[in-house]
Amino acid sequence: MLSSASAVSTALGAVEVAGTLAFAVSGLIVAANKRLDPVGVCVIAGITAFGGGTLRDVLLDRRPFFWVERAGWLWIVLGLCIAAMLVLRARHLAPTRRALLWPDALGMGLFTANGAQIALDLGMPALVCVLMGVVTAVFGGVLRDVLCNDVPSAFSDHQPYALCAFAGGWVLLGAHALDAPVWLALAAATTAAAALRIVSVYAGIALPPWKVDEGPPK
Amino acid sequence: MLSSASAVSTALGAVEVAGTLAFAVSGLIVAANKRLDPVGVCVIAGITAFGGGTLRDVLLDRRPFFWVERAGWLWIVLGLCIAAMLVLRARHLAPTRRALLWPDALGMGLFTANGAQIALDLGMPALVCVLMGVVTAVFGGVLRDVLCNDVPSAFSDHQPYALCAFAGGWVLLGAHALDAPVWLALAAATTAAAALRIVSVYAGIALPPWKVDEGPPK
Amino acid sequence: MLSSASAVSTALGAVEVAGTLAFAVSGLIVAANKRLDPVGVCVIAGITAFGGGTLRDVLLDRRPFFWVERAGWLWIVLGLCIAAMLVLRARHLAPTRRALLWPDALGMGLFTANGAQIALDLGMPALVCVLMGVVTAVFGGVLRDVLCNDVPSAFSDHQPYALCAFAGGWVLLGAHALDAPVWLALAAATTAAAALRIVSVYAGIALPPWKVDEGPPK
Repeated sequence: MLSSASAVSTALGAVEVAGTLAFAVSGLIVAANKRLDPVGVCVIAGITAFGGGTLRDVLLDRRPFFWVERAGWLWIVLGLCIAAMLVLRARHLAPTRRALLWPDALGMGLFTANGAQIALDLGMPALVCVLMGVVTAVFGGVLRDVLCNDVPSAFSDHQPYALCAFAGGWVLLGAHALDAPVWLALAAATTAAAALRIVSVYAGIALPPWKVDEGPPK
Repeated sequence: MLSSASAVSTALGAVEVAGTLAFAVSGLIVAANKRLDPVGVCVIAGITAFGGGTLRDVLLDRRPFFWVERAGWLWIVLGLCIAAMLVLRARHLAPTRRALLWPDALGMGLFTANGAQIALDLGMPALVCVLMGVVTAVFGGVLRDVLCNDVPSAFSDHQPYALCAFAGGWVLLGAHALDAPVWLALAAATTAAAALRIVSVYAGIALPPWKVDEGPPK
Repeated sequence: MLSSASAVSTALGAVEVAGTLAFAVSGLIVAANKRLDPVGVCVIAGITAFGGGTLRDVLLDRRPFFWVERAGWLWIVLGLCIAAMLVLRARHLAPTRRALLWPDALGMGLFTANGAQIALDLGMPALVCVLMGVVTAVFGGVLRDVLCNDVPSAFSDHQPYALCAFAGGWVLLGAHALDAPVWLALAAATTAAAALRIVSVYAGIALPPWKVDEGPPK
């Protein structure tokens, strides 16, 4: 039992780390496109990577944070940013962004599963668990866009992103309702959310526009 | 005594709920005007409705959140958004916004009274109680505007709003200083804040402009 | 021993207060330049002054906040704003901003030392202590810029600011590693961060631009 619990805990940790790096690179690219200075690029990359999980932990009153327990990961993100600033040029940004689709989708799926599982372990109601998965997966990017003075792309680009996380969260809850082992529930939720995201990007699925025939300016 | 405490607690709960729906609709309208996608509209509506109370609870280190204890309300706000997206059109937005003056003012008054009362129960100093009322009433809208990439209208439209909440908070403290029962203090504060808001809108009262004869661009 | 601990605690308190006022004025100036209304100016000044320390305390799960324990300081900041609105005019803003370089740099140094020391007392890892110093010193200004709908100047003006705080944090940790008394570690860190800031402004030192030869618009 103990070793199984500890294996799940290790798996949760590994999962959190893998998504973190993909998110850091996405923050780095947005900040570079905004012409932020090197300090700003590092801060935005770090907040994109750790912001969603941190906000979840603040909302759930959970301490210490992931990045306090394993402060080594802060160094890795910092090193990643400095390395990127030395080698990346503008002509690399768009291809890097495209290359990020898969790791970003996987990270989103992993964060969703992880965030929802943590809330479930704390005995939260079903919808709150799913929303904590969405917060973990999406709000790093939301904080990135707010700090870069953009409307968050997750709320405005009409591509399914938070919606995939939302669906993935329900897959996790469904798996638990069917008494699946934790690792299977996590894997199913991660796969579902990531697959939905990748399929919807390749298939060009767009959220329906909000039907405002001719809206008055606010 | 117990039944009185429980009646007050029920009244506080009902009060929080009524304001919540008016705030959700205001978030929905701003997000729709900004052409956010359906996911963004739901998220902004939810954050406008629950953001002020959530921020207050984070600052006061109070758990579980209102919306965790009564997760059903999250479903109601979600349902409200979906219904609104199906029936609302652009030509409805401006009239809906005007129609919101009364429920929004009442919600603001209710949130102010509720937030200040909660801080008072935790033994906070007077000014902190009043500020917690203001945070509860105003910061849902502030988060809405920040996420929609606007300067918060509460800080820039020169209409008294946070100021009405501030005054209402002092009414609550005054009523307690006069040993009024809790329900009366809550009712007086709610009425005072809401009435100030409604009167100032109808009377066209504006905050004095900040006297910058000719300001250099920052 | 006790009196020494209490002297350090008093010194920490005085330090927090001195920086607070310089930060409040900086918030006031930015908000006035943005033509916010008087309520907005007061709120932005308050958030600039107390936001960094509040965010640090939320992240460290530390209560009560500085401004709850000493609510008198909220009144002082409020009085400062009202006085400033009565006497300041646009032609005063730019000179006031220049005059702020020294108190702002000192405040930044003090907040850095204070924030890092608090995290150290809670047993945080070294890098987390330094980051808490940076958060305390920098995020009041970041919140100010986000609420005023600007890209945070700390991340985009290519002047060393967060970097000076970062260096100051390491000075504090270095002093502790050398078994320096707490007051000396605090003084060294404050001086180092403030001196770095002042020297870099006078010497016109700029952070290297992020090398994006010709970046595609995002």
